[in-house]
Amino acid sequence: MSRSGSKPTRRADAQHNAEKILGAAVACLSRNADASVIEIAQAAGVGRVTLYGHFPSRDALVEAALIRLLHEGDQVLAAVDLTGDPRETLRALIESSWLLIAQSSAVLEAAQKTLPPGRLHDLHAKPEQRVGDLIVRGQAEGVFRDDLPASWLAGVLHHVIHGAATDVATGRLDRADAPGFISETILAAYRPR
Amino acid sequence: MSRSGSKPTRRADAQHNAEKILGAAVACLSRNADASVIEIAQAAGVGRVTLYGHFPSRDALVEAALIRLLHEGDQVLAAVDLTGDPRETLRALIESSWLLIAQSSAVLEAAQKTLPPGRLHDLHAKPEQRVGDLIVRGQAEGVFRDDLPASWLAGVLHHVIHGAATDVATGRLDRADAPGFISETILAAYRPR
Repeated sequence: MSRSGSKPTRRADAQHNAEKILGAAVACLSRNADASVIEIAQAAGVGRVTLYGHFPSRDALVEAALIRLLHEGDQVLAAVDLTGDPRETLRALIESSWLLIAQSSAVLEAAQKTLPPGRLHDLHAKPEQRVGDLIVRGQAEGVFRDDLPASWLAGVLHHVIHGAATDVATGRLDRADAPGFISETILAAYRPR
Repeated sequence: MSRSGSKPTRRADAQHNAEKILGAAVACLSRNADASVIEIAQAAGVGRVTLYGHFPSRDALVEAALIRLLHEGDQVLAAVDLTGDPRETLRALIESSWLLIAQSSAVLEAAQKTLPPGRLHDLHAKPEQRVGDLIVRGQAEGVFRDDLPASWLAGVLHHVIHGAATDVATGRLDRADAPGFISETILAAYRPR
């Protein structure tokens, strides 16, 4: 017998399958927001029963794929130096965030179709916090307006950057123009009167 | 016989049923974005077969309900005087649009879940055109920035106002704060440098 069937091995197999399924979900949903559970199971090389053993529904799989992308994105955003001039820092955060969001647009579309409204935004708590802290610092330093709450200003960036990703996906906006347009708009919206 | 069964009457009956179904769809989807076809048929007092005779799918019904609301909204927005100072006109348009969008948030949520991305935005062509024309005039008069295209600036308003509606629906933003926050943000974003 080449496989022992002992508990640690079975646990390792299960872990390995969950990883394969999640990787396949990210890959399939990145190509097609409407990818089915059957397509994802085939891409992962597992049966449907095995897939449902790890993820009880397509919605759960879409959410797990989004959380995976957000986690990877968080590692990219964590590398941005947050200590400089808040305006330049914001510009750098927008550029990095834009690349991540533009790469994930089909998964985001899938999530928007399946998750309850607000859940998508809730899952962005960590990047949102990073932007929120930067805005609070910019307000304290007098380079961002403080007549509007930081949470609102952070939400505006969330909506504009995700809206721009939809605009690119639907051919309404040139991909190359997006990061500059977003930065120019947001910096103006945040400027003190 | 009280009903003649003649062609004009049957046509009038069909028209009447279509109206009842559409009215029920708007009412049911306004209360619950996930309202089913069966619920809508019951509210309209028609059978499922009759409903499907008029609207071949739930998606078609959701789209028809949204188009109905947009048409009604258009009549409200058409009453806004567009000839004054572009900044004050924009503020008035934002206030009227906000009321319409906040009232329609559940139908918009249903549409976002069922319509292809971009379709929701496409259906807003008329209000978008109204805002776009106002922005072009404001740019020509030097009160709105012209370093960014009018289409982008109009899109920013679309994303911020719809994002704010989601924020209110998910408890992230106080409904009373929304129209003022939106206007202050958009007017700053549009201001020439």
